[in-house]
Amino acid sequence: MILSAFTMNCVSHIQQGLWVRDDTRQAEYTSLDPWIELAKVAEAGCFDAVFFADVVGVYDTYAGSGDTAIRTGMQTPVNDPMLLIPAMAAATEHIGFAFTSSIYQAHPFIFARQLSTLDHITRGRIGWNIVTGYLRNAALSLGLGELPAHDERYDRAEEYLDVVYKLWEGSWEEDAVRADRRLGVYADPTKVHPIDHHGEYYDVAGPHLSEPSPQRTPVLFQAGSSDRGRDFAARHAEATFIVASHAQQIVPDLRKRAAEAGRHPDDLKVIAGISPIVGGTEAEAKAMEREYLEDLSVEAGLAHLAGSLQVDLAAIDPDRPLETIEAEGVQGFVKHLLDSAPPGARTFGDLVRGNMAGKFLVGSAEQIADRLTRWTEQGVDGFNVVVSILPGTIVDFAEGVVPILQERGLVQTEYEPGPLRQKLTGRPRLGDDHPAAQYRR
Amino acid sequence: MILSAFTMNCVSHIQQGLWVRDDTRQAEYTSLDPWIELAKVAEAGCFDAVFFADVVGVYDTYAGSGDTAIRTGMQTPVNDPMLLIPAMAAATEHIGFAFTSSIYQAHPFIFARQLSTLDHITRGRIGWNIVTGYLRNAALSLGLGELPAHDERYDRAEEYLDVVYKLWEGSWEEDAVRADRRLGVYADPTKVHPIDHHGEYYDVAGPHLSEPSPQRTPVLFQAGSSDRGRDFAARHAEATFIVASHAQQIVPDLRKRAAEAGRHPDDLKVIAGISPIVGGTEAEAKAMEREYLEDLSVEAGLAHLAGSLQVDLAAIDPDRPLETIEAEGVQGFVKHLLDSAPPGARTFGDLVRGNMAGKFLVGSAEQIADRLTRWTEQGVDGFNVVVSILPGTIVDFAEGVVPILQERGLVQTEYEPGPLRQKLTGRPRLGDDHPAAQYRR
Repeated sequence: MILSAFTMNCVSHIQQGLWVRDDTRQAEYTSLDPWIELAKVAEAGCFDAVFFADVVGVYDTYAGSGDTAIRTGMQTPVNDPMLLIPAMAAATEHIGFAFTSSIYQAHPFIFARQLSTLDHITRGRIGWNIVTGYLRNAALSLGLGELPAHDERYDRAEEYLDVVYKLWEGSWEEDAVRADRRLGVYADPTKVHPIDHHGEYYDVAGPHLSEPSPQRTPVLFQAGSSDRGRDFAARHAEATFIVASHAQQIVPDLRKRAAEAGRHPDDLKVIAGISPIVGGTEAEAKAMEREYLEDLSVEAGLAHLAGSLQVDLAAIDPDRPLETIEAEGVQGFVKHLLDSAPPGARTFGDLVRGNMAGKFLVGSAEQIADRLTRWTEQGVDGFNVVVSILPGTIVDFAEGVVPILQERGLVQTEYEPGPLRQKLTGRPRLGDDHPAAQYRR
Repeated sequence: MILSAFTMNCVSHIQQGLWVRDDTRQAEYTSLDPWIELAKVAEAGCFDAVFFADVVGVYDTYAGSGDTAIRTGMQTPVNDPMLLIPAMAAATEHIGFAFTSSIYQAHPFIFARQLSTLDHITRGRIGWNIVTGYLRNAALSLGLGELPAHDERYDRAEEYLDVVYKLWEGSWEEDAVRADRRLGVYADPTKVHPIDHHGEYYDVAGPHLSEPSPQRTPVLFQAGSSDRGRDFAARHAEATFIVASHAQQIVPDLRKRAAEAGRHPDDLKVIAGISPIVGGTEAEAKAMEREYLEDLSVEAGLAHLAGSLQVDLAAIDPDRPLETIEAEGVQGFVKHLLDSAPPGARTFGDLVRGNMAGKFLVGSAEQIADRLTRWTEQGVDGFNVVVSILPGTIVDFAEGVVPILQERGLVQTEYEPGPLRQKLTGRPRLGDDHPAAQYRR
């Protein structure tokens, strides 16, 4: 079972509003200390990786401005996650680090060197979550004008991957580096190649600036949910993220698409997001949940939902009674919220709070371990554990749930040697059936 | 006296070929350890900063290819320096970190966040060396086609700085962050502003993704030597680099230009590059120098010179006797090399070795301290100490030369509190006469 800790270099990531609690270090996100602590507690708990979400713009759909996001610290401000990793890696030995970076935020030639550098200095503990971006404000700050259309973003992503694959896999041959001190020869130039990429979006001469790193290509994550997105994941990703409760429908579909893309279906690991609240007993967990529910920020949740759905939800007052909303016969996501209204919900705000709270997985360590075991039986390969409390969520999970899963033989009791990919898939480099492999010499 | 350690995240930086020695860790550049050690020894020696050079292309002028650079490890391969800094910062408390980044390698909106993130996690210990790039291969790998013309590069650099200044200084007001846990308010949206930049090269909406960091704008370094480059430095830079032996002519010119740009002339610190070889005695130092001279790589030196001058020097065989070169009546840099031929030089290769060796500053600690003191009297504010041996050069300098300079009151004996800019200039933020200040609210 793959375990990663899911977080973001900002104040409020997914479980909006919990940063105000005294037991979380999330509001210290601008300093290295809480991140180094997170890496250490996750490694003590045999987690495979710490996984960083990211955006490079403000959620400004709600009420047509970024004000709510800024007021509530909802993914704004947001610092660069990549720059936390070297310090977290220096403080740990085994755990991996994955981060999100959009194909629009860095030129592939420069990005490829950043990933190679990280893979070198972490000795192969790096993963990249490939995204194409969905925030209009990000597009406007990157000089793209309006957000490019969905398919155009994926077209560009395909070429972006071609470029970085050529740099990572094809530019430096395996034995190019000689490091021969006696002869004063560092590398054999006949084994270092330009890539001479000339495409629709990019022209990149090469050679790659970095010598081969332990994994060459970092472990590739992707979380597309659209049809095109799932095909993209099936073609490129080594791990993809799903909503845990959708496992039964999505897992077979993803494996089928991977097979259609010419890959071994098991080479696409499916990781489900969970927000555990682990108590010593169920009652304790429920007491914690009640506290969290009080701290959840409906305002921030609305800004997040509105931005993710690209629908301005501000027309509905959070205090508006549900009956009056139902009477209007709403459609789409608001209808979905209504249909999944938690017991006792009376206002629109209650629905939004319920939507966030519904993601909590609440129980004793044993109960949570049971639930994860069942999902595993549905084909889920691992879990992305949302760090609601930094680092308390991971401490509770590592101390409570992990030992039970270890007893069941579902979680490692110590780290295997080798790079992150070796730990996740059993081999250090991408398989020959992966599209990156075509560029090898 | 400002002291920085000058290095590069590669095998062979300036004193080409010394990586083959047993007493240097330069060939371990892909791991964090030697860099963390360098940061610690430099901090123990009261250095102000570690300073990273960088390029994002291969030197391919020599013989029309990058082969020589690749064979000798001459600035190829080269990993990203920015990603070493978080780990070096976590292992130290006071020392600053500056790195080189070209305006062509990162979009200013993304770069601004990277610098803000670094400034946050280092608590204000960050500097940026602004460059416009000069390698054709870099331009070809970044999709620019041929290298843009010199003036075009500076035009773009001016706008790039406008964009990042607006983001760093103008987007978030000083009291925008409230971090009020009781109210659940992280920031006041009325104090966070888009920058709405629309220029010739960039369109950036903003707001800045990061809240204000200790220094806001990192300490700005620039090393232009052309007329336009010196004016650029005089307008923007807080510190600029010169060749030590040119101090007497250049320092007054730079100060005059700073005054013409409306700044206080002393706000532009002038830092001279030196390559010290410090011995317990002069004889010991000279013995070390003889060893280094043997290890210097003429081949790598030629590739470096050719790329820097953009003149293919391969037409002249390194073994060619000087008389036959003199007989041809050569001009330009080759003539300069001939005119400054070291005693005993017989071949073109000897000239190239002499050119590298001529940069060494060899002597007992006392002799070197005396030389630096005299340059200081010529208006030099500090020295960029080339790390010929990693980290031995800095250990020898810190243990030998620094205590003498401290006795003379020229080097700090302990670090003052506050960010890097405070330590270098006496104030934590840019002065009101700096062009970035116009964007403050």
